[in-house]
Amino acid sequence: MQRFRPQNPDFENTVRDSFSRQPFMMLVGARMERVAPGLCEIVLDHREDLTQQHGFFHGGLVSSIADSAAGYAAYSLYPEESTVLTVDLKVNFLNPAEGARLRARSEVVQAGDILYHLKADVFAEGEGQSVHCLTGYFSMMCLHGRKDTVNLGRTGEGT
Amino acid sequence: MQRFRPQNPDFENTVRDSFSRQPFMMLVGARMERVAPGLCEIVLDHREDLTQQHGFFHGGLVSSIADSAAGYAAYSLYPEESTVLTVDLKVNFLNPAEGARLRARSEVVQAGDILYHLKADVFAEGEGQSVHCLTGYFSMMCLHGRKDTVNLGRTGEGT
Amino acid sequence: MQRFRPQNPDFENTVRDSFSRQPFMMLVGARMERVAPGLCEIVLDHREDLTQQHGFFHGGLVSSIADSAAGYAAYSLYPEESTVLTVDLKVNFLNPAEGARLRARSEVVQAGDILYHLKADVFAEGEGQSVHCLTGYFSMMCLHGRKDTVNLGRTGEGT
Amino acid sequence: MQRFRPQNPDFENTVRDSFSRQPFMMLVGARMERVAPGLCEIVLDHREDLTQQHGFFHGGLVSSIADSAAGYAAYSLYPEESTVLTVDLKVNFLNPAEGARLRARSEVVQAGDILYHLKADVFAEGEGQSVHCLTGYFSMMCLHGRKDTVNLGRTGEGT
Repeated sequence: MQRFRPQNPDFENTVRDSFSRQPFMMLVGARMERVAPGLCEIVLDHREDLTQQHGFFHGGLVSSIADSAAGYAAYSLYPEESTVLTVDLKVNFLNPAEGARLRARSEVVQAGDILYHLKADVFAEGEGQSVHCLTGYFSMMCLHGRKDTVNLGRTGEGT
Repeated sequence: MQRFRPQNPDFENTVRDSFSRQPFMMLVGARMERVAPGLCEIVLDHREDLTQQHGFFHGGLVSSIADSAAGYAAYSLYPEESTVLTVDLKVNFLNPAEGARLRARSEVVQAGDILYHLKADVFAEGEGQSVHCLTGYFSMMCLHGRKDTVNLGRTGEGT
Repeated sequence: MQRFRPQNPDFENTVRDSFSRQPFMMLVGARMERVAPGLCEIVLDHREDLTQQHGFFHGGLVSSIADSAAGYAAYSLYPEESTVLTVDLKVNFLNPAEGARLRARSEVVQAGDILYHLKADVFAEGEGQSVHCLTGYFSMMCLHGRKDTVNLGRTGEGT
Repeated sequence: MQRFRPQNPDFENTVRDSFSRQPFMMLVGARMERVAPGLCEIVLDHREDLTQQHGFFHGGLVSSIADSAAGYAAYSLYPEESTVLTVDLKVNFLNPAEGARLRARSEVVQAGDILYHLKADVFAEGEGQSVHCLTGYFSMMCLHGRKDTVNLGRTGEGT
């Protein structure tokens, strides 16, 4: 389903490099498994310190990896000199996030010049099963002419 | 603004005890500062391992503490034998989450028998300033007759 | 994709009868084209009095027919003595709603006992084209033991 | 609460003129009661043909007038040569929309250059009461250099 054509020929390295500079994703042990034009998958192995009071992965973390997957699915289509900010997210929790591993998968639904709409889903995997935990939409902004590494200052256009 | 009357006379201990059993909140160093009937505030100090590639608090984490604040604001109004699950969340990121500390504050907007609507906001504090980073709504389910500590199994009603 | 089994053997008549009692859907000329277990399609022909200032279908109306399609996709799976209320909706507008006809299609994503999650999409059709205008999620509540026809009074659980 | 300064000195006429060119708002009998910088209120009297099967105002219509109020609250802050499109909306239904009149009120939460975040609420009024029916957030895009009257064509940036 190669619907989208990347503007940045080196998009995969650009995306993976940016992800590796997200200390919070490193703290929780998230890995980027797959990047393709307009698509990203992030995987997170179970650890007890990632859970909430019922022993499930914490819901905030479930949406965090969905957010990262969505941000990088969008970023894969951005031009070279640009960076990505989440504008909003809206997610439904369908089932408890319980299992050996979470897999977040996001795809671009619509690519504008500035605003990208993405859907994202998270599945809890383990013992040959995959349970759908989260489904939702994310809006991402493309900040043209901004480096991905520098502190952006306040833009009034998302975070 | 004491609009809500708690059903559980010991609601504050019940809420604080549950929060203390969220390993993920401990991992990131979140603290519950305030609990009142239908209200909760959670504070998170800046640490480099909580940031994303621009040096801001990671957006997923910003929504995570908002989610926890919302869950516990709802839970403060629940009956004793019950537990809380997030059904959905919808948030807007207004400004980058940059500062010495994040403060998430959530209040119940509407309390049903089963479904609670909450609003939540996150502010980045530091140097005498408070910048509004996130605003949004959360829906929480009240699972009657369920203990807060046991593994719930799949309910098909949120996570 | 017959994933869902209806509890009400006469679900199609029940759904179509309820839809025919929505005066607002009649005002705008919406028609229910298809009902299946967990699925509903509603179609709306272009009329100038349904537009906004740019000549497109009004965005509120686009989400209205998506809401009706979602409500009835959920209702198709409900037991006989029950009714449906929208709890929340979250939608993205992907393209202007311009064309001879709108088609809203909704499917149940998750069916709980009380809460149903649905996705819905709206397409603008005409001249052999179909443009994706809206995509989003809707939560519906199943009110057990309530008739679909009577005034429900205030439940504090959605509208 | 005059937090916002309009860019267009004639913003009120500009906004009211645009609203008067929304045939769908005319069809349902909506009136713009109040416009101020970053704020708009729209009122809708009860009519039987605006209801759903329980006799309440149809939920889609409740969100429609909230959408219009949000769009025009944003538009009141836009520069002269520009127009407004809804990017997304996320709303919770708090109580059935039952009463003599609906009042939608929206305010700008954050004004960017291109993207505006708004909150909106709808109240059902009558017999000296005001019941909170809907609360939610809307994102609006400012299309610079586009006339409000012409057909915009497909922008890929909302509708």
